[in-house]
This record gives sequence, C-alpha cells and structure tokens, in this order.
Amino acid sequence: MSQFIYGVDIGGTTVKMGLFDHRGDLLEKWEIKTEKENQGSKILPDIVESIAQKNKEKGIEQTDILGIGMGVPGPVTEDGRVLKCANLGWGIFSVSDEVSRLSGVKKVCVGNDANVAALGEQWRGGGKGFQDIVMVTLGTGVGGGIIQHGKILTGSNGAAGEIGHLTVNPKEEKTCGCGCKGCLEQYSSATGITRRTLELLEQSDQDSYLRQFSRDAISGKEIFDAYQAQDALAGQVVKEFAVYLGMGLANVAAVVDPEAFVIGGGVSKNGPVVIDVIREEYEKNVMFALQGKEFRLAELGNDAGMYGAVRMVLE
Amino acid sequence: MSQFIYGVDIGGTTVKMGLFDHRGDLLEKWEIKTEKENQGSKILPDIVESIAQKNKEKGIEQTDILGIGMGVPGPVTEDGRVLKCANLGWGIFSVSDEVSRLSGVKKVCVGNDANVAALGEQWRGGGKGFQDIVMVTLGTGVGGGIIQHGKILTGSNGAAGEIGHLTVNPKEEKTCGCGCKGCLEQYSSATGITRRTLELLEQSDQDSYLRQFSRDAISGKEIFDAYQAQDALAGQVVKEFAVYLGMGLANVAAVVDPEAFVIGGGVSKNGPVVIDVIREEYEKNVMFALQGKEFRLAELGNDAGMYGAVRMVLE
Repeated sequence: MSQFIYGVDIGGTTVKMGLFDHRGDLLEKWEIKTEKENQGSKILPDIVESIAQKNKEKGIEQTDILGIGMGVPGPVTEDGRVLKCANLGWGIFSVSDEVSRLSGVKKVCVGNDANVAALGEQWRGGGKGFQDIVMVTLGTGVGGGIIQHGKILTGSNGAAGEIGHLTVNPKEEKTCGCGCKGCLEQYSSATGITRRTLELLEQSDQDSYLRQFSRDAISGKEIFDAYQAQDALAGQVVKEFAVYLGMGLANVAAVVDPEAFVIGGGVSKNGPVVIDVIREEYEKNVMFALQGKEFRLAELGNDAGMYGAVRMVLE
Repeated sequence: MSQFIYGVDIGGTTVKMGLFDHRGDLLEKWEIKTEKENQGSKILPDIVESIAQKNKEKGIEQTDILGIGMGVPGPVTEDGRVLKCANLGWGIFSVSDEVSRLSGVKKVCVGNDANVAALGEQWRGGGKGFQDIVMVTLGTGVGGGIIQHGKILTGSNGAAGEIGHLTVNPKEEKTCGCGCKGCLEQYSSATGITRRTLELLEQSDQDSYLRQFSRDAISGKEIFDAYQAQDALAGQVVKEFAVYLGMGLANVAAVVDPEAFVIGGGVSKNGPVVIDVIREEYEKNVMFALQGKEFRLAELGNDAGMYGAVRMVLE
C-alpha cells in the first residue's frame, strides 16, 4: 500500500499544492486561488477540500496519508501557531490544529513560508549535502530562512531569519516597509535594484545601455545584462547591491556560522554572476574563521516551499 | 550516595574550576594556572590532576562523578573538537576524548567559553526563565553566545555567536583585531569606549569631568559615572557605544529572534543604565515583530562559564 504526503505553500494570491510519495518525490502539483475575504476564513477549508478531491481522484484513503506540511506567509511558532498573517487577514491561532480538525489528518506541520522554502532547498535543492544553510530570497523583498543541523531555526516567536530587515545602512533617510531605515531589502531586493537604477538614470545624463528601455521595462535581468556588458551605471547598482548583501550575509554568518548560503528569488535567475559579486563583498567583511563559505544558487524555484513542507512531515 | 559534576572554564591565564552537586549547585570553587608552554600540552593533564586531588580530598569515587563540563577559548564543534585555540597554543583535536582518556570519566562535554557562559546565564543567571537568549559580554572584546530552546547554537564550525565581529560601521578606517574594519567590538567593548574617550579628550579642549583622571585611570566606570553626571563628552561616547550595540543587537534579533538579551562583562557592572541606553537604540533599529525584547544584566560574573559547563553535563 502506497503512502502519500501533501505539501502546501500558501501565498497571497495562490496556494501551491503538491502530492508527494513517501520518499518525498513530487507526483503532481496544482494551484488554487487564495480566497482572502472574511479574514481569510475560507483558505484552510479550500485547501482541505482540494486535498479531499485529489484523494478521491487518485483513490487515496485517509490512512494512506502520512501528513500535510504547510508554509504560511507570517511568523509561525514551533508548535504551529501563526502570530498574525496580515497578508491573509489571519489573527493568532493554531493552523496545525485547525487543518487536523478539518481534514482528519493527524500530522500537520506548519512553518513560515521563507523558512519552509529554505528547508526545501537544503533537502532537495541548492543546499543539498549541507546541514547548516542560510537561504536568501531576492524577490520583491529580501526573505530569509536559516537551517541548523537540518532543522528550521524558528526563534522564540517565529521571526528568526528576517534577513531582509538587517540594518545595513544607518545613514539611509528613506523608510523601509517595516518602518525602519536602511534595511537590506531596500538595496538588494529586485525592487531595490530597480529603484536605484531609475534614481541614477534620472539623477544624471550618464550614458547607459539601460536608457534604451522604458522605466517599466527595467528589471533585474536588464540590469545584470548591462552589468555583464560593462555598463558603468549598472555597475554602480550591482556594486551597491553586492556591498550591502555581502556585509549583511557576513553579519548573518557571525551569528549562525552556516556551511553555505543559498541564493534564490527572481534576482538569482541571472545566474552565477549574482553569486560571484556577493561572494566578493562577503569575503571583504567577514572574520577569518568564517571565510570560504559555499555560495549556491537555489534550484527548486516556486516549488521550494512545497518540498520544505513535505520535509517537515518526514522529519 | 552523592553524585558530583566538575565545571571547568579554561582562560588564557587561569583555569576556573568548580565542584557541583547533582542538581548543579556550586559546592566549592578554585583556580589553577593555565600553563601554556609546549603548545598548551600541560593544560588538560593539570586539570585532570586537580580533579583527582579534589576527589581524594572529598572522598569522591570515580563512579560518583556524573561528568565533566568544560569551556575553552576557541571554536568548538558540537562533538567536542576544538578547531584551534590560538590563545592556548592548541591545534585541532577532540578535547572531550582527551579528557575522558586522562580522567576515566566517560561523560565530558566541551563548548566554546562564550557560548558556555551564555548557557550558564540562561540556566542560573540573568536569563533564568527564558529558553532563547542572546548573551553579550562587554569586556576587553565583545563576546557572544546564543541559546535556542535551552541549547547552545554552535553553527557548522563552532563559530556562531561571534557578535563582536558584526560589521556595524562600513566607513571605519581602523582595523579590528580580526582583520576587518568597523566591527562592533571596536566601539562597544570596554577597550572600545576607553579608546574613543581618549581620542575625544585629545581632539578637543571641551570641558569634561574625565579630564581629572590620568589616561590610564579611565575605564568604563569613570565614563558611565561621567555620563550619569551629564558630562557631554562622556555622553557622546556612551551614545556611540549604544548606537552601535543597539543596531548590532537588532541585527542579531532579525537572525535568531530571542526572548531576551543578557548583558555581561566589565561594562555591565555599571548597572541598569547600560541596559537603558542599549534598549533605546535597539528599539529604533528593529522591525515591529522584534520590538519589546527583554534586556537583563548578567548575574553570575566569572562563574557563568562553570555553570554552563555543568549544564551541558546535565542536559
């Protein structure tokens, strides 16, 4: 008799769902809409309903299910309670108890989405072969997740790994989304490097490859392409991106001493050049005992959260 | 039949040794000299010899000893291997295996001294009642230790918790002992605030309470006394101390999300004012989810390491 695990990654727009076998190999994946009305009260029932449908379709019995793993976009304590997911309209409650109750599945493991994605990458992605990694996701913001000895480091209130909100520039005057100033996210996210590029393009008449694009068409890809084509303005943006990120990761290393950094998110799709520029600045800022850490690109893309969710069930 | 534990804290000058009962209460403490000649090869035999003498004196049998716990001044992996203790002349070897072999005691637990002191404070000192703390020792340098869920966070190579080497001022031109520039230790250690005070006294003719002392007589105590007496120059030094430390600890919180910070070392002997100035700057730099952490003074002083060493044995 086969056994199965469901891996679920709840985002603000869609819920990514995967059916996995008992070894953690992905059999099938699909998405459902995240229905946020009524303080997000439909989200968990919708997920459980979708699982029930899949069970029926595949002839899977309740007793064939080893567990359900879930990533949610907010702080989660080690026992599966969320402490507010502003994004989904949720307050404070135990997601694992609720999903257990709705589904009848006893083992429900819940983690913060960035932490769960880090666990996925450590298990099956760019961090494979390492037990201690720091995952950094360079997307709209800068997300982070820390894996120590193969397990998520949650912290006391589920807020560990908030690497995007390390203060890296005490002199900054613009305010970050978190209310503080000079956070890593302001410089090294996809949004951050685009903002800086547009600022520099406006502030000077400096010749640049990037002037051929409309403002809306400039993203990480154009900026890193220009950088590799020796464009000076793009060079300045990429240098800033790397200086802040290298310093931020050196500081993370001084706190948790990982074996490797795994770099994911939209910006990482520009390939090995991203790692090369970060590593160079990292080495400049880190004490001797922490030099020479590995830097890897993430490999699982949007599936990382589902894999990590499944990994929690198999632990 | 009573049972006992030995707690040992190896420093560069002396080895602090304690005899504890099976509950972890200190019965007696003493010190021996750290003999560093011949690459520190006498240090462990001397400790084992001192334990044997104490056993004889107290009529303790080998079978009455639950274990020996030890803190050493260098990185230690989770399985008790040291990776170089420059300070003692040691290379790479298993301290726990060696002490076991020499003493015949099976359970020997070894940790980095700063980490072990953090564990001691969490168990029996300023961090009592918390499971997740960050301990910061403001002495000659700035040391750190991180306790997560009641256990030491070692990192992959025993170098976690190196809070003194967080980069907090990327513009610094002076080099830190670690070879980098702008480390927290350069501003917030006892040495750091004394250095800054002497610099400011030299650079200006500004009136100051501190001018009554000779250069050699100025330490953290004089500086904090002057600060509390509203001395402007001391105010500037204490502000800098707090700005860098507050920012550094906000960054540590974003990585590991503790319940409390415990502040120890010489500078902490100036009492609650130290905590007040740090907390104020911490709150300015930290994201909403990490505000309102507890700040406590360390309570065990130089005994923290022995207590933490014993705690490892009892875990």
